[in-house]
Amino acid sequence: MAIHSALIEALGACLGPRGLLTDPKALIPYNEEQRRNYHGEARVVARPATTAECAAVVRLCREAGVSVVPQGGNTGLVGGAVATGDQVLLSLDRMGAVRWIDPEGYRIAVDGGCILADVQRHADEAGRLFPLSLGAEGSCRIGGNLATNAGGLNVLRYGPARSLCLGLEVVLPDGRIWDGLRVLEKDNTGYALKHLFIGSEGSLGIITGAVLKLFPRQTSTVTALCGLTDVRAVVPLLSRARAITGDEVSAFELMSRFAYGLGVRHLDGVRDVLDTPFPWYVLVELSTSRARANLDETLAILLEDAFDSGLIADAAVACSEAQRQMLWTLREGLPEAQKKEGASIKHDIGVPVSRIPAFLERALPEVERLVPGIRPCPFGHVGDGNLHFNLTRPEAMGDRAFLDRREELNARIHDIVMDMNGTFSAEHGVGRLKTRELAQYRSPEEMDLMRTLKRALDPANLMNPGVIV
Amino acid sequence: MAIHSALIEALGACLGPRGLLTDPKALIPYNEEQRRNYHGEARVVARPATTAECAAVVRLCREAGVSVVPQGGNTGLVGGAVATGDQVLLSLDRMGAVRWIDPEGYRIAVDGGCILADVQRHADEAGRLFPLSLGAEGSCRIGGNLATNAGGLNVLRYGPARSLCLGLEVVLPDGRIWDGLRVLEKDNTGYALKHLFIGSEGSLGIITGAVLKLFPRQTSTVTALCGLTDVRAVVPLLSRARAITGDEVSAFELMSRFAYGLGVRHLDGVRDVLDTPFPWYVLVELSTSRARANLDETLAILLEDAFDSGLIADAAVACSEAQRQMLWTLREGLPEAQKKEGASIKHDIGVPVSRIPAFLERALPEVERLVPGIRPCPFGHVGDGNLHFNLTRPEAMGDRAFLDRREELNARIHDIVMDMNGTFSAEHGVGRLKTRELAQYRSPEEMDLMRTLKRALDPANLMNPGVIV
Repeated sequence: MAIHSALIEALGACLGPRGLLTDPKALIPYNEEQRRNYHGEARVVARPATTAECAAVVRLCREAGVSVVPQGGNTGLVGGAVATGDQVLLSLDRMGAVRWIDPEGYRIAVDGGCILADVQRHADEAGRLFPLSLGAEGSCRIGGNLATNAGGLNVLRYGPARSLCLGLEVVLPDGRIWDGLRVLEKDNTGYALKHLFIGSEGSLGIITGAVLKLFPRQTSTVTALCGLTDVRAVVPLLSRARAITGDEVSAFELMSRFAYGLGVRHLDGVRDVLDTPFPWYVLVELSTSRARANLDETLAILLEDAFDSGLIADAAVACSEAQRQMLWTLREGLPEAQKKEGASIKHDIGVPVSRIPAFLERALPEVERLVPGIRPCPFGHVGDGNLHFNLTRPEAMGDRAFLDRREELNARIHDIVMDMNGTFSAEHGVGRLKTRELAQYRSPEEMDLMRTLKRALDPANLMNPGVIV
Repeated sequence: MAIHSALIEALGACLGPRGLLTDPKALIPYNEEQRRNYHGEARVVARPATTAECAAVVRLCREAGVSVVPQGGNTGLVGGAVATGDQVLLSLDRMGAVRWIDPEGYRIAVDGGCILADVQRHADEAGRLFPLSLGAEGSCRIGGNLATNAGGLNVLRYGPARSLCLGLEVVLPDGRIWDGLRVLEKDNTGYALKHLFIGSEGSLGIITGAVLKLFPRQTSTVTALCGLTDVRAVVPLLSRARAITGDEVSAFELMSRFAYGLGVRHLDGVRDVLDTPFPWYVLVELSTSRARANLDETLAILLEDAFDSGLIADAAVACSEAQRQMLWTLREGLPEAQKKEGASIKHDIGVPVSRIPAFLERALPEVERLVPGIRPCPFGHVGDGNLHFNLTRPEAMGDRAFLDRREELNARIHDIVMDMNGTFSAEHGVGRLKTRELAQYRSPEEMDLMRTLKRALDPANLMNPGVIV
């Protein structure tokens, strides 16, 4: 239903001049999606400053039969926060406060619009760690991180956003507020409502507040780059690393020779730290807050064990913070380095950790068969089973011609992944981009359950319609 | 609706003679609840041997309009698996297999009826740890552990059952099977259905299979008993212990002087290991699988820090496995020791960790006011905020007279707990025992959400009706 002026007036009366944007220029940042796959057409952006205002917006829209699209930092990659001209875009960008912090109890409570880097900073200043960390952390907002169950760099050690959340405050599709701001690790009193909203991508309600877990701040870190001659070694290597280090592995990142080479070639200050080339590399990092931790020794034991059992063929340990930074610049600069080689097609896939080698052995020849000369650039968080299976165009092929093969390559890779009990969306979510895949790959029972939940909680289909189901 | 012979015949045809029990003697173990708070009256017990048979039972009962009560090991404490004579009790006790184990990938998949100790043993034999551990582990079944989100001894380090589960297979209230046997840590493809069934106490479906996480098996353990002069020290002590040990604290158990004294007095082979009495004691244990871990040193640093900052006044480190066992015999024998002092009234409560001292300062005078001479015996998992706030009758009072005060004491303690943003059921669940408390303490919005979910997934109210909502 179109937005009538009466609704705009009512929203303005509720939110005040700063709380309602209708000027086309002011709307641009809310309508531009990061990867430009989607263009929003919202003509009305509501910016509540409190949970009560947020609830009032939802109620007013509901009475007018207008649907609401919640938006956090607008850093999503699957079109989950994109509104049409007939919808009200509800931004959390005026609800960015830290509500309280309890360092001794390892807890922090924040508004849904709190920027992730602010959560991290408040924790750090209190001597604590909030471990969620991802590329967009300077602008993404915690409500969005929870709504999409964000992953990022520390999932291996601390789990995704879901694992870090103890309680939620949610504005429901009918405009009521659910106060689920619990602080407890153990609380068995009914259905896990919190988990229903986490990962629902704003389609079941709007996360306006959260209680989060904190951890001891790390005080020691050691980092090494390992060269592998066989990708099959990656599974036993991680397996032994977990046991030998007592689960103090905080990063375990795989890179193919091609990916590593791109980094060395294109990234400033990055050089190859191993004497000979290897088909595969693993960046491994251990960290702890333990007093008088001797992580150097632990790492040495791990590497020695890995050499002796033939899992790695070479390794370089970072001997200074500068060396450590170089290894991370290489790993984190891969998307940028890849850009220099022309168009690429990206996949946010996951397979069971033990099956990563089998997946690569199956997928790599398959993409070469489909597009001869294609340059696969796989890297990613092996510890989570989450690979960025990125494909760079053949040297002799144009960008456009290569991108025209996207659908075909996507379909084939997703087929392989799903055949191995994997996922076509490890961390980015479904949004509007992958609803077709969801319906295709998930069983009728599963789709039915999801649709039943959506209908039960949002019978009028006014909360971020078109997302997920 | 009563069970007609046609349904019994159909179930018998489906399940065979071993799969259907109607002989009153054979039914006794299924109808007896551990604490004898409830007496089941089931006249029909269905024991499917496969997921397909389990689904068939649900469908047959549904067609007959008969409700189903799922039962795992029948070790629950809140009447969640108790059937009336008009219901079919569905036991998972013939579905006890381990389906597969992947030690390198740290995963195990099991039937819903697999006994917890069997999961632990299979993991251990593969050099891995399945950390869920609780008193009933020799007879409770993993489907029940997941349906009730069981807690136990290792929640501080590894979280409750929910945290250990990656995927589920569930027979839905309509008799269909949801195959959600995922193996991935990261998978953002729609609503978190798994979490809806975990903790639903069998009221939304029957858990027939699960994929679980494994961990490195611990190889070093150190244990100490600390004497505290002030219970307020317990929060900073835990806080520092987490940081100093790098989160290698695997137990942090508080005991009052009265509780500790009962253990020393009544338990075989247990003696006081500290020279003078203290009002409060903490049993702390560190453990790790780390190679060449020097936990003795870490523990020494922790205890020295705690002495220097005045948090503890004395400590005894277990110097042998026998000494360690004695400390655990004391802690785990407390319920038994308590029995020797007459009737007691128990509470499975939780409060935010930081507020445990405030809770005790408020609740202890209150129960003394209500029942002068009452002997509170608080102990429990401080790290989780979960206290067993057990109350022993006054020496001069009869058991019966004391137990008559149960409702009154419960109500007062639950009021205090809920006022502190705590929980009246930290780990046992709601079942049939605490539905009144749930409706009383949870907001109308929350109750409404739970009832909406129940109605949506089980519109005919045939799956464990009367539990939770």
